[in-house]
Amino acid sequence: MHISKKAAGMPSSAIRKLVPLSDAAKAKGIKVYHLNVGAPDIKSPECAIQEVIRRCQEMDHFSYTNSAGLMELRQAMVEKYYKKLGLDVEVDELLINIAGTESFAEAMQIVADEGDDIMVVEPFYTNYKTFCYANGINLVAVHSDIKDGFRIPDISEWEKVLTPKTKAVLISNPCNPSGKLFSREEMLKIGEFCLKHELFLICDEVYREFCYTDQEHYSALRLKGLEQNVILCDSVSKRYNLCGVRIGCIISRNKEVIAAALRFGQSRLCPPVLGQFAALGALDTPQSYFEEVKAEYIRRRDYTIKRLNSIPGVFSPTPLGAFYAIASLPVEDAEDFTRWMLSDFSKDGETTMVTPIATFYQNPENGKNQIRIAYVLSVPQMEKALDILEEGLKTYCSLKGFKQE
Amino acid sequence: MHISKKAAGMPSSAIRKLVPLSDAAKAKGIKVYHLNVGAPDIKSPECAIQEVIRRCQEMDHFSYTNSAGLMELRQAMVEKYYKKLGLDVEVDELLINIAGTESFAEAMQIVADEGDDIMVVEPFYTNYKTFCYANGINLVAVHSDIKDGFRIPDISEWEKVLTPKTKAVLISNPCNPSGKLFSREEMLKIGEFCLKHELFLICDEVYREFCYTDQEHYSALRLKGLEQNVILCDSVSKRYNLCGVRIGCIISRNKEVIAAALRFGQSRLCPPVLGQFAALGALDTPQSYFEEVKAEYIRRRDYTIKRLNSIPGVFSPTPLGAFYAIASLPVEDAEDFTRWMLSDFSKDGETTMVTPIATFYQNPENGKNQIRIAYVLSVPQMEKALDILEEGLKTYCSLKGFKQE
Repeated sequence: MHISKKAAGMPSSAIRKLVPLSDAAKAKGIKVYHLNVGAPDIKSPECAIQEVIRRCQEMDHFSYTNSAGLMELRQAMVEKYYKKLGLDVEVDELLINIAGTESFAEAMQIVADEGDDIMVVEPFYTNYKTFCYANGINLVAVHSDIKDGFRIPDISEWEKVLTPKTKAVLISNPCNPSGKLFSREEMLKIGEFCLKHELFLICDEVYREFCYTDQEHYSALRLKGLEQNVILCDSVSKRYNLCGVRIGCIISRNKEVIAAALRFGQSRLCPPVLGQFAALGALDTPQSYFEEVKAEYIRRRDYTIKRLNSIPGVFSPTPLGAFYAIASLPVEDAEDFTRWMLSDFSKDGETTMVTPIATFYQNPENGKNQIRIAYVLSVPQMEKALDILEEGLKTYCSLKGFKQE
Repeated sequence: MHISKKAAGMPSSAIRKLVPLSDAAKAKGIKVYHLNVGAPDIKSPECAIQEVIRRCQEMDHFSYTNSAGLMELRQAMVEKYYKKLGLDVEVDELLINIAGTESFAEAMQIVADEGDDIMVVEPFYTNYKTFCYANGINLVAVHSDIKDGFRIPDISEWEKVLTPKTKAVLISNPCNPSGKLFSREEMLKIGEFCLKHELFLICDEVYREFCYTDQEHYSALRLKGLEQNVILCDSVSKRYNLCGVRIGCIISRNKEVIAAALRFGQSRLCPPVLGQFAALGALDTPQSYFEEVKAEYIRRRDYTIKRLNSIPGVFSPTPLGAFYAIASLPVEDAEDFTRWMLSDFSKDGETTMVTPIATFYQNPENGKNQIRIAYVLSVPQMEKALDILEEGLKTYCSLKGFKQE
């Protein structure tokens, strides 16, 4: 029996594929610091949890919701979240989805057929490539470089890779994995580019609340004249540290796009109802929660970046958003190093897991010596995890003959 | 701006596409009896709801689970459910999915590439066609006829439509929409056919607990020698009247299949955690719950079938499983009739919504005058809904010049 070529070629998650190695380490009694996955240790808002309990106490039956999600939730998202941000969104422009993930998987299929191109800035979130693969779409990257702090390439670079098959630009703002925050000017230029070439602009803004500068996040929804082009992919579960509840949304003012998104949504019947309850509760989260979370991430980021750059041979530019940092290491193959850390190294019975990010680049060679670190642990925990990383790197370099400089 | 050809051609759910008409009827103050969707009014098990509450009270943070689902849930499914049924399933042969829907969407992509064929018996659950469409797979049907009570066609009929591109047989047992229950002998024959032609056998058994005869449900997992062929798609949310929580699983003894399913699962990160808690609780549902539910469905079915067949010109064979009945109507186009019932007819301020099922057939002409009725309401409610249907049908036939005989 042979599985399909498509299934055989379906990539493992770059972020999750090394989990068996960390499981094996744990089975040997080793404690693993998980800097590999963007699963923060921060508490979910109490109001979200209480709302689930309240609804469960009142209800005796969990039936399907509308494929578009609970109308009550769609309305609350518009009123309690987007309006507060000054973003003009109507209820019929917003559909509830199974997290941000479903939104961009849908958006890609809505804009591109098999053989079409979608443009991204590399490094990019690796699942973009996975969903393009699953749908026969080509992901075409313009390069942003760690040495320039992942500066967004000039539009002239984008023009170079444009083809008649290019249907959309896909950006993540702030960016997973680089932490890059797109400025208003950059957004305007990208918008102009999309208008000029009649491209959709898919914006993954799931890290919108995780920005660490005074610079305001410039949502693609603010772009004038691009109402028919912009498709916004947003997350509720990520924003409120409710990652497991899997709720997000897709927003577009293009009626054809929303109608198509609803047809995709109908095929999976409905988003999970209990998560929708959590989302309803989460929308009452006080602003102070976000301020505390932001202050905490700034502490973690500042510590992480300073510490990483103090390790000989390591370079990590300061991210302005999301909760990831990319670091280049003085090694040939960061995946080999990551595996070695899990299989062959520990310090006082502990080790650290990171994500090698070669596959976050169109050309894996561009990021072969880079890792992504999710600064999702408290500073004292990050300190321990980075102590281990530093010592592991030193041992690995000395074993393998790499110079740390 | 043009959306992709694929998105433009993506079919609306045959079951959900008429929802705007029922919403419009409700907006006019008309009560709608929903016999269109398999969303039973039966209470979810108390232990499922209590488990969600208990976990919410204990936890302060809902992070991702493993992409394969909570290990605790996978183990509980094996121990508390499959073993009790006498089905031999190992934990590493089972992955938690976002309901049965995700399982068969995955299974199709695992067995077939674009341009390949999957065989089904028509009428079939319309979402099979939707997911085949989305993946460029051809759904090829062998016909079962309402006149024969949807008897499974002889294998000679299956051989006729077999091509070198055929990769799998997909069956729903008991069948949505026909209520057909496959006998042990039929399963053995289908198994033999799959073995002979090296086909995967994808079995959608989400209605396993909804069988209304003394005949035991014969799961595809019992087929000897087909360990490498069988892919089982199962639901937890459907089984326990928790439709909205969206939890199911995919089971296969074929390691390559499970590894591929996990890669697909990694791309959407994890199944919803709150639904997994509900599933954990649901596994402690006492057998008496199922017995009561079954007795209730038998009452509903018996009433529904008797009543439908008493309406002049209507024929509906007795289903042995699931909670659907198919009826042929003395009209030309059952979709037109369904729309008319929602838009132009009411009786004492009430109307009834059913599902026209032409699109449940490969050749829609085969089912153009048929509807699917989900007997998901109590007998007194079904009585009112069918009173309305009967009167609506009479009026419609007389208006349109169809003879009821």
